[in-house]
Amino acid sequence: MSLWSEIHEQPEVLANLLAAGRSKAASAVLALGHDWSHIVIAARGTSDNAARYASYVWGSRNKFTVGLATPSLYGPYRTPPKLDDALVVGISQSGQSPDLVEVLKEAKRQGRPTMAITNHGDSPMAELADVTMTLEAGEEFAVAATKTYTTQLLVVALLSEAWSGAEDPDLDRVPTAVQETLDRAGEVEPAAKALVAAERAVVLGRGFNLATAFEWALKLQELTYLLAHPFSTADFRHGPLALVESGLPVLAICPQGPLLHEQRELLVEVSGKGAEVIVISSEKDLPGHRLPLVGGLPEWLSPLPAIVMGQLLCHRETELRSLDPDHPRGLKKVTLTQ
Amino acid sequence: MSLWSEIHEQPEVLANLLAAGRSKAASAVLALGHDWSHIVIAARGTSDNAARYASYVWGSRNKFTVGLATPSLYGPYRTPPKLDDALVVGISQSGQSPDLVEVLKEAKRQGRPTMAITNHGDSPMAELADVTMTLEAGEEFAVAATKTYTTQLLVVALLSEAWSGAEDPDLDRVPTAVQETLDRAGEVEPAAKALVAAERAVVLGRGFNLATAFEWALKLQELTYLLAHPFSTADFRHGPLALVESGLPVLAICPQGPLLHEQRELLVEVSGKGAEVIVISSEKDLPGHRLPLVGGLPEWLSPLPAIVMGQLLCHRETELRSLDPDHPRGLKKVTLTQ
Repeated sequence: MSLWSEIHEQPEVLANLLAAGRSKAASAVLALGHDWSHIVIAARGTSDNAARYASYVWGSRNKFTVGLATPSLYGPYRTPPKLDDALVVGISQSGQSPDLVEVLKEAKRQGRPTMAITNHGDSPMAELADVTMTLEAGEEFAVAATKTYTTQLLVVALLSEAWSGAEDPDLDRVPTAVQETLDRAGEVEPAAKALVAAERAVVLGRGFNLATAFEWALKLQELTYLLAHPFSTADFRHGPLALVESGLPVLAICPQGPLLHEQRELLVEVSGKGAEVIVISSEKDLPGHRLPLVGGLPEWLSPLPAIVMGQLLCHRETELRSLDPDHPRGLKKVTLTQ
Repeated sequence: MSLWSEIHEQPEVLANLLAAGRSKAASAVLALGHDWSHIVIAARGTSDNAARYASYVWGSRNKFTVGLATPSLYGPYRTPPKLDDALVVGISQSGQSPDLVEVLKEAKRQGRPTMAITNHGDSPMAELADVTMTLEAGEEFAVAATKTYTTQLLVVALLSEAWSGAEDPDLDRVPTAVQETLDRAGEVEPAAKALVAAERAVVLGRGFNLATAFEWALKLQELTYLLAHPFSTADFRHGPLALVESGLPVLAICPQGPLLHEQRELLVEVSGKGAEVIVISSEKDLPGHRLPLVGGLPEWLSPLPAIVMGQLLCHRETELRSLDPDHPRGLKKVTLTQ
């Protein structure tokens, strides 16, 4: 199994998850009850980016205030906060990292409801949690997470649907949107070539696709060793904008939606300063190299096809740089942090 | 007024804030009451890094769960989450950015208690909030925030002290610790020279000094145009570790405390791979160039002298690179994002 094959498995694993996950999400939501008013998520790496997505989806569609945990307070410092009124969620591919397990343990000690989102239903995190949503992605062998990220996003979306109480037909279109994205893999070529000599880049997103910016940057770091720094488009204006100069790669995700205008303005501005713009969008009227955002999904589901297009760019980039996409230097599949 | 003079004003403004701020913090804490069980903070840029500090300080010392707001849901998307059981805090030097003001407005609509932490007591944010803590830093003219960041940290610390109900003599030593740091400005020279040709760097911190890593990276971006990417030491192991190669600058903040062992292990590992390590620490037994962390403060207050040492390095770096520290390209003092 290779990174390439795992990227291409995604329509199938997403379809499987959709088939099995709806009733599981409905049961999970029932079991979690209503004895909480906000959500705290503990996650690291790629899973932390799924947590970022959850904070926008559950915040916007289900009206829950979502915050990210500070795991070091639970583990090394041994000064855990009070989790009054919180639902505590752990997201982890392996379900093993001790720092995240410690957050769930403390939540249990404090009598709070807990949920695990993991690919391993027999992991320590799953065994601890009141409720577990498994990713049903099959074993992921490549070090860089791909199918476990998109299935995490879909679990987040399924839970949102279950909390809303109404079946959402847009969800059924996710596997097709991802397949259509894979079918257009060849279109990454000009952007991949434009990046090939770069050692640094910034990656911009906001709202639902802030998660995509973070995950795309992480894939670029892991697979191509490009120092890609993700920013919220709004935070970027508060300082990092000074970085922009001729030739700096500026990557962005720009779906249709209320933020498109502001993002276009920024891309036109940085393009005018000579930045090398690469943008994932369905919108044609944008500067730079365009990577297609396809499938016609509403903005809140666009992070699924968007990151798959990002994965395709990263994979092609490893080929152009003669790197091994299946064995990034210095990394292991399961990382155990305290 | 220049960046250099504002960096050097810090012992004085911190001492002034300490003199005036204790009773103000006590009144603020009284006025905020106990009708909430967690805290949501809205902030951008440097103020967002102060929010990061608050999440560790208020979490660890006062046991409050602290999360960061998702401002785009309040503004552009117009789908604000329910803020049940939350105290809502805005942090902003200018108190003006519309996206942050919108979060506080929504909190008021929902009948939640609100606090503003700002340098401008007559700003829109201050006028909205139930309670305002001003930074008492005097006007900040330089685009890159320095004294308004350290005074934000001290306000966070003063509120923590007030919530704990017991005066903490360690706070009185902050201005001296910052002065001692300034007195050792000359010691940045070898590290500043080692960085002078770099275009990219990673900056590592964890726990209380995760905020320092983010703020140091932001200053490097704004002032030296170095693409500095901050990471939690733990998150760094979950993927970005692949970035490490010979010559990559790895900056870190390593105070005494329960995380020192793990941080030392990582620095030894990356140093073995040829990374150019620069570390702010009081600990001598670490690889790379050492910038002194002085003042003998407990770990939770170390972010104040630590970031001042980071500011000194950035300022020296602008001189070595012949850049203008008072007018970073592309930036204005007040940034208004929606």
